[in-house]
Amino acid sequence: MYSFLPNIFLKLVNEFSKLPGVGEKTAFKFALHLLKRPEEEARLLADTISKFKEDIKLCSVCNNITTEEVCSICKDPSRDSATICVVEGVEDLIAIEKTGNFRGKYHVLHGVISPLDGIGPEDIKLKNLLDRVDKGDIKEIIIATNPDIEGEGTALYIAKLLKDKKVKITRLGYGIPVGGDLEFIDEITLSQALESRKTLDFDR
Amino acid sequence: MYSFLPNIFLKLVNEFSKLPGVGEKTAFKFALHLLKRPEEEARLLADTISKFKEDIKLCSVCNNITTEEVCSICKDPSRDSATICVVEGVEDLIAIEKTGNFRGKYHVLHGVISPLDGIGPEDIKLKNLLDRVDKGDIKEIIIATNPDIEGEGTALYIAKLLKDKKVKITRLGYGIPVGGDLEFIDEITLSQALESRKTLDFDR
Repeated sequence: MYSFLPNIFLKLVNEFSKLPGVGEKTAFKFALHLLKRPEEEARLLADTISKFKEDIKLCSVCNNITTEEVCSICKDPSRDSATICVVEGVEDLIAIEKTGNFRGKYHVLHGVISPLDGIGPEDIKLKNLLDRVDKGDIKEIIIATNPDIEGEGTALYIAKLLKDKKVKITRLGYGIPVGGDLEFIDEITLSQALESRKTLDFDR
Repeated sequence: MYSFLPNIFLKLVNEFSKLPGVGEKTAFKFALHLLKRPEEEARLLADTISKFKEDIKLCSVCNNITTEEVCSICKDPSRDSATICVVEGVEDLIAIEKTGNFRGKYHVLHGVISPLDGIGPEDIKLKNLLDRVDKGDIKEIIIATNPDIEGEGTALYIAKLLKDKKVKITRLGYGIPVGGDLEFIDEITLSQALESRKTLDFDR
């Protein structure tokens, strides 16, 4: 169909199409955009992609992304090492950091247990979480996996794994999202919000 | 704000943000996607971008993209060299080729005249269009610039430039788009569609 276009152009469209949410039309737009941009801009993009894959590694403590042996969060002495927030991926760590309300440390699993997709506990980065707990000094593990079937399953699995360790295990609170509209919230969330209701303290 | 993330990660996010329609959120998604993909896939993307900018050049006849001196459309002996369709960019050439209904050749301007943006006639690839017309054998020039102010202005400019040459100059027909809804079509388009009305021939 596109035999009138050079192969290298179609190859670039094909590579761009592999990015998440990028269809053929968007991939064409990206390639045509690069066509118009100066050589240096395209080279900078290409070089940054290469350097990114060369330099980025996972923190040996928490599996967060870093260019060093230990990531900046793990190295930060002002953060509370006794509280660890377990997340599925780096995107979740970024979301929690953006709140500015968590001053503990993290553990990134890089996945969730998902038997239907053939992903078992050994396929996610659980082992070094156990090592961290065994080394001691951890008081609380907040399991912040997503509130879906795989996330719940993984949370339960981790809770069981750690149940004999001297560590408090918590899960992110369920409830209505701030700004949410009651009538559009599913029954399970609404039931959870009722259960986790708070006393309004007018005396303060 | 993102001081907890490695510089090379933020640099990649920044480079991805330069692609059209890509905001910070999407750029993060692209970078996190590459993080999860094998080294080879990222390298292939980087190499393809580099090779694309090195290999792609503009056809010396029509300015279409090619890796050779003359593009595959200009070289195709089965296409009608006497009809040239003038388009603003390669994306327009692709759109017309996809119809499968045009068997002439092209001329890609790589821009439109836009005095407000400081783009004059000398900034778009008009000179080799004149050369082509002067070399003769061209019967019709179809000006297929976009139906906006700059496109119309450029069409008029080209028409004036060629008015003394022995060549028929046409413009793409205006009218209602197929599948369009009459009530939502602007008055100018609707007026044009009335003017360009066709006789329905029931005798055939």
